[in-house]
Amino acid sequence: MSEVIDALVNALGSQVRIGPDIPARNHADAGGLAPTPPSALILPQTTEDVSAALRICHAHRQSVVTQGGLTGLAGGAHPQAGEIALSLERMSGIEEIDPASATLTALAGTPLAMIQQAADEAGFLCGIDLGARGTCTIGGNIATNAGGNQVLRYGMARRNTLGLEVVLADGTVVRSLNKMLKNNAGYDWTQLFIGSEGTLGVVTRAVIGLHPKPLGLQTALCAVASFEDALVVLRQFQQKHPGRLLVFEAMWREFMTVATQICGLPPAFEDEHDVTLLIEADMGEDPEGTDAFSLLLSEFYERNLIKDAVIAQSRADRNRFWAYRETPYEYGRFLPEEIRFDVSVPLDRMAEAVAHLRQEMPKQWPDAVYVVFGHVADSNIHINVAISDMSDDIKKGVQSLVYSLVSGMGGSISAEHGIGRIKRPYLSMSRTEPELALMATMKQALDPAGILNPGRVL
Amino acid sequence: MSEVIDALVNALGSQVRIGPDIPARNHADAGGLAPTPPSALILPQTTEDVSAALRICHAHRQSVVTQGGLTGLAGGAHPQAGEIALSLERMSGIEEIDPASATLTALAGTPLAMIQQAADEAGFLCGIDLGARGTCTIGGNIATNAGGNQVLRYGMARRNTLGLEVVLADGTVVRSLNKMLKNNAGYDWTQLFIGSEGTLGVVTRAVIGLHPKPLGLQTALCAVASFEDALVVLRQFQQKHPGRLLVFEAMWREFMTVATQICGLPPAFEDEHDVTLLIEADMGEDPEGTDAFSLLLSEFYERNLIKDAVIAQSRADRNRFWAYRETPYEYGRFLPEEIRFDVSVPLDRMAEAVAHLRQEMPKQWPDAVYVVFGHVADSNIHINVAISDMSDDIKKGVQSLVYSLVSGMGGSISAEHGIGRIKRPYLSMSRTEPELALMATMKQALDPAGILNPGRVL
Repeated sequence: MSEVIDALVNALGSQVRIGPDIPARNHADAGGLAPTPPSALILPQTTEDVSAALRICHAHRQSVVTQGGLTGLAGGAHPQAGEIALSLERMSGIEEIDPASATLTALAGTPLAMIQQAADEAGFLCGIDLGARGTCTIGGNIATNAGGNQVLRYGMARRNTLGLEVVLADGTVVRSLNKMLKNNAGYDWTQLFIGSEGTLGVVTRAVIGLHPKPLGLQTALCAVASFEDALVVLRQFQQKHPGRLLVFEAMWREFMTVATQICGLPPAFEDEHDVTLLIEADMGEDPEGTDAFSLLLSEFYERNLIKDAVIAQSRADRNRFWAYRETPYEYGRFLPEEIRFDVSVPLDRMAEAVAHLRQEMPKQWPDAVYVVFGHVADSNIHINVAISDMSDDIKKGVQSLVYSLVSGMGGSISAEHGIGRIKRPYLSMSRTEPELALMATMKQALDPAGILNPGRVL
Repeated sequence: MSEVIDALVNALGSQVRIGPDIPARNHADAGGLAPTPPSALILPQTTEDVSAALRICHAHRQSVVTQGGLTGLAGGAHPQAGEIALSLERMSGIEEIDPASATLTALAGTPLAMIQQAADEAGFLCGIDLGARGTCTIGGNIATNAGGNQVLRYGMARRNTLGLEVVLADGTVVRSLNKMLKNNAGYDWTQLFIGSEGTLGVVTRAVIGLHPKPLGLQTALCAVASFEDALVVLRQFQQKHPGRLLVFEAMWREFMTVATQICGLPPAFEDEHDVTLLIEADMGEDPEGTDAFSLLLSEFYERNLIKDAVIAQSRADRNRFWAYRETPYEYGRFLPEEIRFDVSVPLDRMAEAVAHLRQEMPKQWPDAVYVVFGHVADSNIHINVAISDMSDDIKKGVQSLVYSLVSGMGGSISAEHGIGRIKRPYLSMSRTEPELALMATMKQALDPAGILNPGRVL
């Protein structure tokens, strides 16, 4: 071990930290695993530094865990004993905004919020957005193919990434800082690295496509009697106002009960309803757009498709509506230990999936508090289950229930959070043998020594 | 050779054709290379047939060229002597439309137009559209990451593909008929096959994401004084009406001159203008949308951003406007031999690129007729150059001019048509050594015997 660290110190000097000089923050990511100090921490400042570091680690068959903002929930950036951490935190900065191409080029360690702000100041919108925006980095967003609340409109990180610079396991730098929507000159190799959770290469720089800024944001909370009705609302809204919907979040009855009775928010509506929807649309800056939004909701109400609705008249209203959706961030204060799931289910099976949970949860764990909510337009739901005195056996039982359900319906055990270390044992529930073999072929081809994020994903 | 054909006939019977039983259409694609009969033609009816065929070819190290609708312009599906052609034409049919998920599942050999029609009948729109829609197949569209006129709104084939079934070089079937917008369970291996022109595997089945149907299509021809003004029109339209623009095609002055003076169309406007734009937007079904479209164009006119404009009042008007854009399909009747380019150029260099062509073309080839037009919002332009008595030397000179220009500006030598055999010698003008090496690594990992579409792309 000391031989490789010597070589790294020799090449990179004070960019290499060991022992007590490694900050505690680099001992863990947000996945909840037990903090583990890496053998060394490398803090490169340039792509060439990353290249030098990987070249040395590759020569020594030294495992490397790449770290961005450390906000991942799947343990992908969490060090294992004996690994060297490579943190991109010092490679931060926006290098260019090109208004003609509507692109932004940034170093991988740039926090997402900084990119969002720069885009905003240039008159554009960054289509990637998620709760961890202040801390997560664009490199991590790309490595995990991050999702979020506006995927419906702007797609996941994959769709927003036009160009990449990547350092391969052996230190080779591959660069295509493409700004163009169309480029079919050979394989689009950048796709390999998006969503591969740092196991195939280290993202060091990216070109992000920007979007026009929404000028007529409308927000509403709507109550519907069933998920089937929610789907009709979704498809008819999209049909009537194509391209306008930004957010379509569903919160099932149990979620709203926890929000009001446990987290202390006021009831959203007088009556209880099976599903509450948080809808946002960009209706354009003309007042006709605002009118069209409320008109369509009224029409849905008259047709009994929605049972009740409130439309935000102010920023304060909007914050009040979002507060429901954001209650899960507060669960730690109110609920016993939770297991959180981030799964996707084909939309035609979604109602059935929720019905199954509602039947099985109380039967198997009578005191479980469980909620279902999420980005349903993307087929993505989150399921949080809180149980007092959660034992490993209970945990396994709950995981088995949820993953079997999702797997049986052709869904995914990870919609947006990735696999990392934590969900790795379950990957085969969403992927067939030939798929896993193909993934292993890709890994073997790109990282034959297996030094990059070993034990993550595969 | 006869040994592998014997084995194929043994396994697949009358699905294998040889000699005069191979139709002439399978001797060539639309790239213009000299027709070459393959050693045999396989016409599989199922994925299992494709698998059996590839297993045998792999064992015999027999090269295979995969054929879809044979409309490709880069020679990717054009047989080379000694190759066996694998045509997916009998694997045609739509297997499912899932309105809840807004997806369509089809066999790879299904013609695009059939998919578009099925989507339409189910109340949706297929986002993939191109001129060859009647003949090209969805498998070919995916294998080449097809573009087209509406990429601006719906993206290329990549963005519209949610799930794939692929047969690998050794006959292994890999399947992820995913219908969900979010699925981060392991590597998204489907990305490997999209746009790799059949060199990494054979697409046999696909899940296509569908879109809401445009209900308020508005079409206009607008004249602008410069490409810079066209860009302002583009960005301000997108800002004012986000998500509405479907088509934003530019036709430079020389293009309109050929359309009117050679192809015989009436002048679009009284005066000549540097750039004519064909704009289409889906303004929604409410009359306010129609008004907003003409209102915004009027505003651009008043601000002197557009010099003249006509808005289609009928289907006939729309056809009349599109007729300009479609004149290149008629060039064969009016012009000497052409070289056609499909390149992309970053938008901030586009005006400069056209200015350079205008300076160099007449200087080097005084009698050249050249036109520039295309999907500029996607950075994609087509350049057609017709020269009487085109010699190989002239051809090379023109190619050198265009590719050097594009390469020097960080553009791409192939925006949407792919590389195939025809552009393979030029790939290194758009890709660096490390990129080409990475592509070779991918090829080696997935097709170590090199039997799939050899000599295409790489």
